[in-house]
Amino acid sequence: MSDAPPSGGPVSKEFIADLAAASRVLADEGVVDAAGHVSQRHPDVPDRYFMSRAMAPALVTPDDIIEFTLDSDPCDASAPAGSLERFIHGEIYKARPDVNSVVHSHSPSVIPFGLVETKMQAMFHMAAFLTRGVPVFDIREKFGTTDILVSDPSKGVAFAACLGDKDVALMRAHGSTACGATLQSAVFHAVYTEVNARVQHWTQALSGGGPMALLDQEEGRLADALNQGARLRAWELWRQRVREETGW
Amino acid sequence: MSDAPPSGGPVSKEFIADLAAASRVLADEGVVDAAGHVSQRHPDVPDRYFMSRAMAPALVTPDDIIEFTLDSDPCDASAPAGSLERFIHGEIYKARPDVNSVVHSHSPSVIPFGLVETKMQAMFHMAAFLTRGVPVFDIREKFGTTDILVSDPSKGVAFAACLGDKDVALMRAHGSTACGATLQSAVFHAVYTEVNARVQHWTQALSGGGPMALLDQEEGRLADALNQGARLRAWELWRQRVREETGW
Amino acid sequence: MSDAPPSGGPVSKEFIADLAAASRVLADEGVVDAAGHVSQRHPDVPDRYFMSRAMAPALVTPDDIIEFTLDSDPCDASAPAGSLERFIHGEIYKARPDVNSVVHSHSPSVIPFGLVETKMQAMFHMAAFLTRGVPVFDIREKFGTTDILVSDPSKGVAFAACLGDKDVALMRAHGSTACGATLQSAVFHAVYTEVNARVQHWTQALSGGGPMALLDQEEGRLADALNQGARLRAWELWRQRVREETGW
Amino acid sequence: MSDAPPSGGPVSKEFIADLAAASRVLADEGVVDAAGHVSQRHPDVPDRYFMSRAMAPALVTPDDIIEFTLDSDPCDASAPAGSLERFIHGEIYKARPDVNSVVHSHSPSVIPFGLVETKMQAMFHMAAFLTRGVPVFDIREKFGTTDILVSDPSKGVAFAACLGDKDVALMRAHGSTACGATLQSAVFHAVYTEVNARVQHWTQALSGGGPMALLDQEEGRLADALNQGARLRAWELWRQRVREETGW
Repeated sequence: MSDAPPSGGPVSKEFIADLAAASRVLADEGVVDAAGHVSQRHPDVPDRYFMSRAMAPALVTPDDIIEFTLDSDPCDASAPAGSLERFIHGEIYKARPDVNSVVHSHSPSVIPFGLVETKMQAMFHMAAFLTRGVPVFDIREKFGTTDILVSDPSKGVAFAACLGDKDVALMRAHGSTACGATLQSAVFHAVYTEVNARVQHWTQALSGGGPMALLDQEEGRLADALNQGARLRAWELWRQRVREETGW
Repeated sequence: MSDAPPSGGPVSKEFIADLAAASRVLADEGVVDAAGHVSQRHPDVPDRYFMSRAMAPALVTPDDIIEFTLDSDPCDASAPAGSLERFIHGEIYKARPDVNSVVHSHSPSVIPFGLVETKMQAMFHMAAFLTRGVPVFDIREKFGTTDILVSDPSKGVAFAACLGDKDVALMRAHGSTACGATLQSAVFHAVYTEVNARVQHWTQALSGGGPMALLDQEEGRLADALNQGARLRAWELWRQRVREETGW
Repeated sequence: MSDAPPSGGPVSKEFIADLAAASRVLADEGVVDAAGHVSQRHPDVPDRYFMSRAMAPALVTPDDIIEFTLDSDPCDASAPAGSLERFIHGEIYKARPDVNSVVHSHSPSVIPFGLVETKMQAMFHMAAFLTRGVPVFDIREKFGTTDILVSDPSKGVAFAACLGDKDVALMRAHGSTACGATLQSAVFHAVYTEVNARVQHWTQALSGGGPMALLDQEEGRLADALNQGARLRAWELWRQRVREETGW
Repeated sequence: MSDAPPSGGPVSKEFIADLAAASRVLADEGVVDAAGHVSQRHPDVPDRYFMSRAMAPALVTPDDIIEFTLDSDPCDASAPAGSLERFIHGEIYKARPDVNSVVHSHSPSVIPFGLVETKMQAMFHMAAFLTRGVPVFDIREKFGTTDILVSDPSKGVAFAACLGDKDVALMRAHGSTACGATLQSAVFHAVYTEVNARVQHWTQALSGGGPMALLDQEEGRLADALNQGARLRAWELWRQRVREETGW
């Protein structure tokens, strides 16, 4: 009876709870406010992903999670409306088989780096993933004057192309998007992009245009390999706080 | 027996609770501190509006809401004192039939833009409403040396004239005032004026006087049209927090 | 039996509770951290004042309040140790019959203005009291190399002389001290000195050395006269929060 | 049966609880986030120290504390994994008999001072310990391209040599490490290094390259001698908050 595409099949309760919790973690850490969203690829079926309905991330519960195809169509004809920008997620999953989780946010400290010529750079080892480069997506280049949102597949494709093989890309006059091989990695990348932005604002001001002894690319590669442990410890902390608050 | 002007008639309990909640939302979001106020036009009678008595916004309850005429006289002779600056609200309602809610605040991040030559500009799509322009009201121009407050009808008229058809105007050495077609819009405009101010401080510093790839006017117009959904989702979050805290 | 000077006589339970609450208000508002103190002159006997024993201000309860002479000797031989810097308070009360409450703090945002040539100035009407001038006390001028603390009567006298008839004075490499005719005024002055400092940091950066349309002296005088109401509304908010937290 | 080195013998329950509490204090005060660690030397046996297993500092409980030799080997063969960077602690304890506690952190406000030519300097008396100098450790100088972490004894030795007889050293593109004669001192040094960093960011910006009337070395020496009391009052406050939260 329904014309909706089929589900990829059931996933564990814990998988869904972790995704809903990630939404609240990002709110707790100041990465998202009343907008922003996080998604996770289906663990068994690579052409499906999960994301909450369009709502404030701090309020997301497991019941708000919807399954989507990579064209960002819901797998349930009666699902509530998803985010207008869900194509960011779907198109990254298509372009990047290595990515299993995506975070989109408008963190105030990060936005300036999408507006000026100064590049975002890695200030310390926790943000070592940034040494791989942080592209800036200017939607005007391909689409001219728009409402800024990545709200259809073609814009999602263009954004995914700009992201390339990186972990984070900025979006001019909009925000940024981080991704990772796991939910924990994507959240870690989103949080430390925000922390690094704050550190860089202070560092640039203090340097007065003088030299900055930043992480270089090879240091970044080595440090990032070690951050696997940091990611898990950070997630343990953040997940625990949501559990205490919500009971799930 | 009373010389007070007549009430516009009863409004719903929810209408009053939402207005009281907006006052606490603005405190929670750092837009107001111990001062500042939010009002809402009578839903049925355009020449009446509601606002709390003079008190700290974080403490407002539904019982503190007073009805006023657009001359900012209370419709109840025994009402406690209203804000000295209620004329900001009344005179905007007179001048702007499209406006149904007004927020006045002294947000620290916003004040600098009323003191220097740098204009407040829209840094991202959530603040797209700012692309329509942000006038600065300098009370000295018309009234010479004053106590800064918009504390009589003539000052309210002058401020409303400065605001013109915009959503926000800054007030030199004082604060700012945001308005909107709904309570949710006015609160959203006040909150994202504050967020945008923080983003702009960082962006200006980072640009070092170089170019900034801001939202242009047409992008702003298109993005703002889409922010209706964002306003409602933000309100859902903010209103929920007040409900959990107060029970109403 | 005791050699301690006599008490000025009993004061109300509410007077002591308000003073203890002011200590927690200053911690809640970020004016004091683990150090700092607030005092209040005896309401009936002008040559006595009350202040907590040496302790973190956020922990002060009514039981921690001690009565002192204006020489800053405790009126109870068995009183626990008072602050090393209580002479700031005693000597201001001697020099300023109009002052009935004093706050000393090390607020991070304020300290920079005691270290550089840029003067603290009033950025908005809530800080109008600053238009009267903000002296900077450099303890080196009179006492050479010291441990920075105002820890004896002669240093207290020198600081009070620097303060003159103002509401606030900064202390180089140390902090600042605010005073007022009432407890509510002194706390208001301390809080808005901190808020104004943050606003001034942003304004100076944004101005890039260009003009700033600050409050002038006469605007400041007029605005400050109106702030009496703002002081009481702010106190009502801050005091209420302590009452909810402590029960007193 | 076990090849683990012998324990230095039992320590009091309070000693362990204070160490676990210090971990949470550092999280509460914004010095550590999901990473960072604090240790304390065995009170009776100088060649043993205690530190939590590798975990987020805000979650540490007394049960998570492990005893290590100064070679940073656990004294229990079945102990969970310690921090990769525990050699920072062990090698400082070897090099500095006067040090009984060490804090390692990545405080965002401090990191910039490890990246630029501007030195961290003492802005006020609470940070007087910084007048003794704040060395910057650049791991590249001795070890070339690395993953940045002080993750083996030779790197720990090099870092301890850079620290010399100081209370704090910065680590380029990494963070900082503070130490002290007591747990309270080390925590105090870590917290006020962070506060001082924020004050210095503001002061440098405000000075515009002009003079800054900082604490000089002799003022710093005298002021630091007096901070013993401040350390204990700060600890009383911070420890109390953890006790209220955890019950231990």
